[in-house]
Amino acid sequence: MCRANSVLSVGRRRSPYAEWVTRAALTWLKGHGTENDFIVVPDPDGVRDLDPTEVAALCHRRAGIGADGVLRVVRSTAIDDPAAKAAADDGVEWFMDYRNADGSLSEMCGNGVRVFIHYLVRAGFVDPSQPVPVGTRGGVRVGTIRDDGRIGVDMGAVALQGTTVVAASGRRHEATRVSVGNPHAVAFVGDLTDAGPLLEPPGFDAVDFPEGVNVEFVVRLGDRAIAMRVHERGSGETRSCGTGACAAAAAFASAEGIRLPASIGVRVPGGDLEVALRPDGGVDLIGPAVLVAEGTWLQG
Amino acid sequence: MCRANSVLSVGRRRSPYAEWVTRAALTWLKGHGTENDFIVVPDPDGVRDLDPTEVAALCHRRAGIGADGVLRVVRSTAIDDPAAKAAADDGVEWFMDYRNADGSLSEMCGNGVRVFIHYLVRAGFVDPSQPVPVGTRGGVRVGTIRDDGRIGVDMGAVALQGTTVVAASGRRHEATRVSVGNPHAVAFVGDLTDAGPLLEPPGFDAVDFPEGVNVEFVVRLGDRAIAMRVHERGSGETRSCGTGACAAAAAFASAEGIRLPASIGVRVPGGDLEVALRPDGGVDLIGPAVLVAEGTWLQG
Repeated sequence: MCRANSVLSVGRRRSPYAEWVTRAALTWLKGHGTENDFIVVPDPDGVRDLDPTEVAALCHRRAGIGADGVLRVVRSTAIDDPAAKAAADDGVEWFMDYRNADGSLSEMCGNGVRVFIHYLVRAGFVDPSQPVPVGTRGGVRVGTIRDDGRIGVDMGAVALQGTTVVAASGRRHEATRVSVGNPHAVAFVGDLTDAGPLLEPPGFDAVDFPEGVNVEFVVRLGDRAIAMRVHERGSGETRSCGTGACAAAAAFASAEGIRLPASIGVRVPGGDLEVALRPDGGVDLIGPAVLVAEGTWLQG
Repeated sequence: MCRANSVLSVGRRRSPYAEWVTRAALTWLKGHGTENDFIVVPDPDGVRDLDPTEVAALCHRRAGIGADGVLRVVRSTAIDDPAAKAAADDGVEWFMDYRNADGSLSEMCGNGVRVFIHYLVRAGFVDPSQPVPVGTRGGVRVGTIRDDGRIGVDMGAVALQGTTVVAASGRRHEATRVSVGNPHAVAFVGDLTDAGPLLEPPGFDAVDFPEGVNVEFVVRLGDRAIAMRVHERGSGETRSCGTGACAAAAAFASAEGIRLPASIGVRVPGGDLEVALRPDGGVDLIGPAVLVAEGTWLQG
């Protein structure tokens, strides 16, 4: 496999064969994790440049295939990216080159990395009985395939950072500030409809969150279970948010005085997730990943 | 081809081969006409039952591939449907088995039939230099492939039926009642934003439209050109509506005193259509049709 790579690209130059592959039909798979959906583009040897226009065309929900983003599957040694180089130096073979639906680069996605790992297993690129490290622009994440087919991914550290206030549909809600690498405000509400239609971003304290915030509205379902809705900054209300589920579970465990380690079930509009909280502040996000279709892009 | 069909299905019974095909992976294409998008399922010999659950799963925008509906491509002799039998009796080979995104049956779709014909040409099933008749549950439609690649489809008769009133965003608008097989109310406005966000169905006269109505908001762009937004009953605001474009063009030609035959350009949010109005009240809808992807359904 490494030999094939060295034939295809010498430094950043491309061989005639690589040029041919780049012009050939783009093949892809579509999958989702709790209805956060992705187009997977296998490109192990890094011979396909995906430009932002092409990504946006693929992700367009009516004129394209439609997805929240693209996950290009590429070897860490075959993409010119500092995070990939760091991953390669650590012996991590696979890099998740994640693009948003508008074509821009993105760092990490808790639901996307499960779909990415599911593809690696399906393609025979990794051994599902072993932990699967994946390089991302947010650092290396390690996934584990569970006996029930769900995939758990180490999401790093979750930090509770005090209280704040959010507002939606003319109502103010006390909220917990949580960092999962990105900023969250978790508001416990009596009913998930309390937040209203969420057509506009919730109000928030711009001093607490100078770069905006993802807002979770959460209800208690049981001793170790919650349900939530989430408004993601820049995206609006979504079917699922992996870091949001981690933030909500951590705020819930703290509010209830739950001893760690503990597992919290988190129901999102797109399905069911599980968040395993460790005493060291680390968190695993466990959930489903499915691939529903594969095909060829006819305009690629 | 007919022999293959007789081998596959005897009356409504299926041969073992047909059962095997039915269980095999579902293959499909995705395409759109002015961003009204469809999953095309080739099934010439009628060996695949598409149940409503499967259609809804395919059309789900996040857990499936995503589309406004499914166009099953089947020979008129190979599907048990009265409209298909009538088409077969008239010598029409191909039947458009159209399903809405929720899995329910549907009659006709002006944008969908272009995509259907585009597929027939691509597959080599019809001669693009000749008119292409297509059986639908709304009757036989005849398509013509233009030199510029656009496809024109005879949409039958358009009938102006007097005036009515519609309301949107707290404003009332005089409108023209138009039947294109289905009911429309066409309101000329000063600006397309006058109708507001159209998150709710526009108000209409329930005596004029006991079964609901599709509402077009139209502005004049030139002597033979309009732009419109459309709210389709049951669907909300959409990117394009073929019968709505025909209704709007006919109302515009009448209001401007345009002599027929005449061609009116109709800009919809998803692209550009052209409506050719004939003196006999008949109308051709001309527009683009593209296929962007093809593939296999992994859960079929």
